[in-house]
Amino acid sequence: MERDVYLRNVELNKAFSLWIDACIQAGVSFPLESEEVKVSDSLSRVTADEIFAKMSSPPFVSSAMDGIAVKSDMTKGASESNPIRLKVGRDAVFVDTGDPIPAGFDAVVMIEDLSRVGEDILEIIKPVYPWENIRPVGEDIVQTELVLPAFHVIRPPDIGALLNAGYATVRVVRKPVVSIIPTGTELVDDPADADDEKVVESNSRVLSSMVSSWGGSPIRFDLIPDDERVIESSFIKALENSDMVIINGGTSAGSEDFTAEIISRYGSIIVHGVGMRPGKPVVLGVCGRVPVVGLPGFPLANFRAAEQFVIPVVRNFLGLGSPSARKVEAFLARKVFSSIGFEEFVQVKIGKVGQRIIALPLKRGSGVLMSLVRSDGVLRIPAGIEGYEKGRKVTVDIYEPDFDIDGNILTVGSHDVSIDILASFLSRKNPRLRLASVNVGSIAGLLAVKNREGHIAGVHLIDPETGKYNLSYVRRYLHGEKYAVFRFASRTQGLIVKKGNPKNIKSIEDLTRSDLLFVNRQKGSGTRILFDLLIGSRGIDPSLVSGYESEVPTHTMVAAAVARGSADAGLGILAAARSLGCDFVPISEEKFDLVTLKDFAEGESFSAIIEVLKDPEFRKRVESLGGYDLSEAGELVLTE
Amino acid sequence: MERDVYLRNVELNKAFSLWIDACIQAGVSFPLESEEVKVSDSLSRVTADEIFAKMSSPPFVSSAMDGIAVKSDMTKGASESNPIRLKVGRDAVFVDTGDPIPAGFDAVVMIEDLSRVGEDILEIIKPVYPWENIRPVGEDIVQTELVLPAFHVIRPPDIGALLNAGYATVRVVRKPVVSIIPTGTELVDDPADADDEKVVESNSRVLSSMVSSWGGSPIRFDLIPDDERVIESSFIKALENSDMVIINGGTSAGSEDFTAEIISRYGSIIVHGVGMRPGKPVVLGVCGRVPVVGLPGFPLANFRAAEQFVIPVVRNFLGLGSPSARKVEAFLARKVFSSIGFEEFVQVKIGKVGQRIIALPLKRGSGVLMSLVRSDGVLRIPAGIEGYEKGRKVTVDIYEPDFDIDGNILTVGSHDVSIDILASFLSRKNPRLRLASVNVGSIAGLLAVKNREGHIAGVHLIDPETGKYNLSYVRRYLHGEKYAVFRFASRTQGLIVKKGNPKNIKSIEDLTRSDLLFVNRQKGSGTRILFDLLIGSRGIDPSLVSGYESEVPTHTMVAAAVARGSADAGLGILAAARSLGCDFVPISEEKFDLVTLKDFAEGESFSAIIEVLKDPEFRKRVESLGGYDLSEAGELVLTE
Repeated sequence: MERDVYLRNVELNKAFSLWIDACIQAGVSFPLESEEVKVSDSLSRVTADEIFAKMSSPPFVSSAMDGIAVKSDMTKGASESNPIRLKVGRDAVFVDTGDPIPAGFDAVVMIEDLSRVGEDILEIIKPVYPWENIRPVGEDIVQTELVLPAFHVIRPPDIGALLNAGYATVRVVRKPVVSIIPTGTELVDDPADADDEKVVESNSRVLSSMVSSWGGSPIRFDLIPDDERVIESSFIKALENSDMVIINGGTSAGSEDFTAEIISRYGSIIVHGVGMRPGKPVVLGVCGRVPVVGLPGFPLANFRAAEQFVIPVVRNFLGLGSPSARKVEAFLARKVFSSIGFEEFVQVKIGKVGQRIIALPLKRGSGVLMSLVRSDGVLRIPAGIEGYEKGRKVTVDIYEPDFDIDGNILTVGSHDVSIDILASFLSRKNPRLRLASVNVGSIAGLLAVKNREGHIAGVHLIDPETGKYNLSYVRRYLHGEKYAVFRFASRTQGLIVKKGNPKNIKSIEDLTRSDLLFVNRQKGSGTRILFDLLIGSRGIDPSLVSGYESEVPTHTMVAAAVARGSADAGLGILAAARSLGCDFVPISEEKFDLVTLKDFAEGESFSAIIEVLKDPEFRKRVESLGGYDLSEAGELVLTE
Repeated sequence: MERDVYLRNVELNKAFSLWIDACIQAGVSFPLESEEVKVSDSLSRVTADEIFAKMSSPPFVSSAMDGIAVKSDMTKGASESNPIRLKVGRDAVFVDTGDPIPAGFDAVVMIEDLSRVGEDILEIIKPVYPWENIRPVGEDIVQTELVLPAFHVIRPPDIGALLNAGYATVRVVRKPVVSIIPTGTELVDDPADADDEKVVESNSRVLSSMVSSWGGSPIRFDLIPDDERVIESSFIKALENSDMVIINGGTSAGSEDFTAEIISRYGSIIVHGVGMRPGKPVVLGVCGRVPVVGLPGFPLANFRAAEQFVIPVVRNFLGLGSPSARKVEAFLARKVFSSIGFEEFVQVKIGKVGQRIIALPLKRGSGVLMSLVRSDGVLRIPAGIEGYEKGRKVTVDIYEPDFDIDGNILTVGSHDVSIDILASFLSRKNPRLRLASVNVGSIAGLLAVKNREGHIAGVHLIDPETGKYNLSYVRRYLHGEKYAVFRFASRTQGLIVKKGNPKNIKSIEDLTRSDLLFVNRQKGSGTRILFDLLIGSRGIDPSLVSGYESEVPTHTMVAAAVARGSADAGLGILAAARSLGCDFVPISEEKFDLVTLKDFAEGESFSAIIEVLKDPEFRKRVESLGGYDLSEAGELVLTE
């Protein structure tokens, strides 16, 4: 085809150093020049130089106590049997804490150790040593001493130290101005303008907030269409007043070409395509003395590429090293694949199951920003490796350095809308507890609990032989373990159909009609097992159900597919149908249970969960979704 | 005496919960009400409620690739030997990544897999499955799904998720307004106005920046004198428009009484005096629906009390828990005492020496803000404990969660100005390496190296028998160890005297003159050993040297005492004299050496130090201080 789809995939670290070297060669100034700011406005700014004290603190010999300044010689030998009297004004001077010590005096007697015996006469019964209760000059800071090193991020106490060291203003590194140009014909600024062809531009907003949280000064340009001349004119404007320029591309490969074309017109491209995933279609260049980056349009790719290229340069401009993440060693709960030649970034949830820290990989598509929002950290798989086996010990970079692993509860297994509500109630009850649900289907959930890769499995599995739910599966998959099964809810499964049921779908049998398109759930999910049982017991061959191969991983995605018209029907729960304005044809009642090992069931976190399950407020809230009966929620169904 | 010096020392946690309970009783609203802000301005704000998606992302079935949308049925059986032709417009429609899939099409063929064989005719040689290369509706976010929980601090990717979920604005918790009233007759705003009686007001600046970094909105009132009526009028104004009011007291006990008096006039005092050190003189009250805090005036006490009382309330107002620090287990390098009945906060430096993490306690006086600036974390000693033994394993709360322990180099031993300069050069060379110097004197430094409580000892110890420096001490104190001694500098010790030497001091013998006041160094310091040797060899009895008992821990503090007139002379180095504008009477040349165990000497960090010691820039800089000769700097003097 005519389009150039070739990208050079330079290894990530090499791409960065090639680019930075080219920037330095071109005269980009790392760090930037300094500017003077008021100390009281200097929080989080970066010192441009070593700062030595201009003044001592305390600047004079001062009293460390409220009391009287005395000449220590005169107090020698004082005792209860030999009290010594001092005349105020001559032998003693009242001082408050912090007051300068008058000349000629060399110690302070605390106010508690005095008694007044006449108008101006005080009595003491203990001697004081020379310099007792006196703060020497510079006890805190001595003039000329180093207060703060160069390239230090100013924290609250530093502000106090600077003022006490005699500084009203301080030289800091100027904040780098980062211009961000959002492009994309398919994009709109306001979510209200999104429709069936337009989506919201969010990358520039994420990037702006990244730049400002790392100490830069972002300028977000107006959103413009994928039009080379329009982009070029914004770019020229940006180049004039910026320390760095970012072109946020659209999602199509064509958009990337515009960016590359424009950059090479005003400077040079150093790297086009980086061996990382997501984030591959990065363009790194330098125009004049301005580093320029073309970022890919998919949200997760945009974020990861910005994190690897934009933020480190913001930090270089400030004279700081690249941000370093807190690292945690964890056992991988699932095998992850990785492409040779690409450093892969895999979002993970972290949890402590028993004594082990577990890393649970989340979705990786470059479009799935929520996998970033929901994750606790990222696993980086080097370019030369094809992936990691399940159970391998890996190092995870944690996003929030004060992240509390013990507070994370990993719920794996089947997806249910009400688990989000359970999570909310739990966190409001105890902010430390965060219930994360990772949707892998009921059977994988049971296996995860058995293998200590998750705390709780949410399951709804019908036994084809007995028509009963869950217990036979639990007995089989958790054989040999000490476990407990608690009822969560009874809920109604049925066919989710368009509002008004325009195609008049009434039963499972209707799904073989040639005018209907079905949307299925993934293998191993309870709903898929139910569906296969429903068609199997009716003797329906899957190939007769058009759309049987199209799988989505959640109830709500089934409902969304139906609501948006990309399918006519799917099997799912009433709550999902209702929340997306679909109609619903009830098919069967099922039991949704929570399965956990006994150790965890007996702990504090699980007690808090049981409390929520029994909370009438919680039950009312879930039942209001429709199709739920929580009257047995929190009851122990089976234990072994 | 007339003044009320009685404080009730309520245990810290109890004080906090008594106060919070009283606040809740009084109707203080935790969390505050919500307000609507633009999503693009919502970074670091706190969600006021669960946020469920209003819109799916992608909102429609869309292409995951650049290519053509096709009907998968038509591609069945395509192969190299059986290419299938498709007519653009009828069988195939060009789509870019992210474009909606036109109705009737159910898969995408990637552009790389196409060849054009005629004007509108494309050929493919591989089939596609139904839904291949297609992003389902809601692949990222499904309408109605939970995007962010309640009371969640919004991070950059969350901003993207909110926009994609259909939100242009978001409900966040209003920022609490915290009014801060700085009081103190002894204080001035501008460091330029500080003199022999006035010191700079810094507490309100530190506190303001603490409040804003934890999400509050500080209002700093004008600095006012310790005058009850003036304070009262600021306080009334503050009460009207604030969610919390802080009175930052002066340093004297009298000031605290004003605060308590005023608070009880407009509301009630819940706690007066907390069992913590520093920070004891805290007043906690509630006036109407406004929590009120009186904070002590000493900088470190002010900080610790604010950290324990003000910040947790700011967080409560936001619906967040108290900040949790990263904890590190470390071995205590020195015994620390603690008073029964007080929870003690001890600033520590942290370093990894060999395989052990060491915590080195720093100064604790409530006035020494620099010990906070220089420390890496804090050790909290519970109220019921008299202290911890040296070598005990303790838990340290680290301030910076991404603090890199391995980059810390602990230099213990004698103080020398040039070590600060070495630290600066080293960090500029490698920002990871931070050389911290803890001044304990030469001999304690040697012991610390022997006991693996520090990496490097700076020593200058004269052998009274030979008049030679350091090596005999190293052999004795490090006997049995593998060590290395490197030359740092030769430097000149002498008498630091006032500018112009007004008292005409010419020799050690002059120090016995009755018109002279001496300032001494602490026992165990090299300079003290030198001084005792100097007077001993001259047969001078210490009691004849007036001021012999007055000890300060550094050369610069000696010079500062002389410069400020609180002493006439002290023994110290030329650089210290010169930096504080004093005159200098040279007495002797000495060798300042760096001593370390061989393991550390052979590591990367120490190589970087040696490189700096040999750097002509560095030598020039240190020699410019005066009295230094660095021509042998970095040379190995002794190894064992």
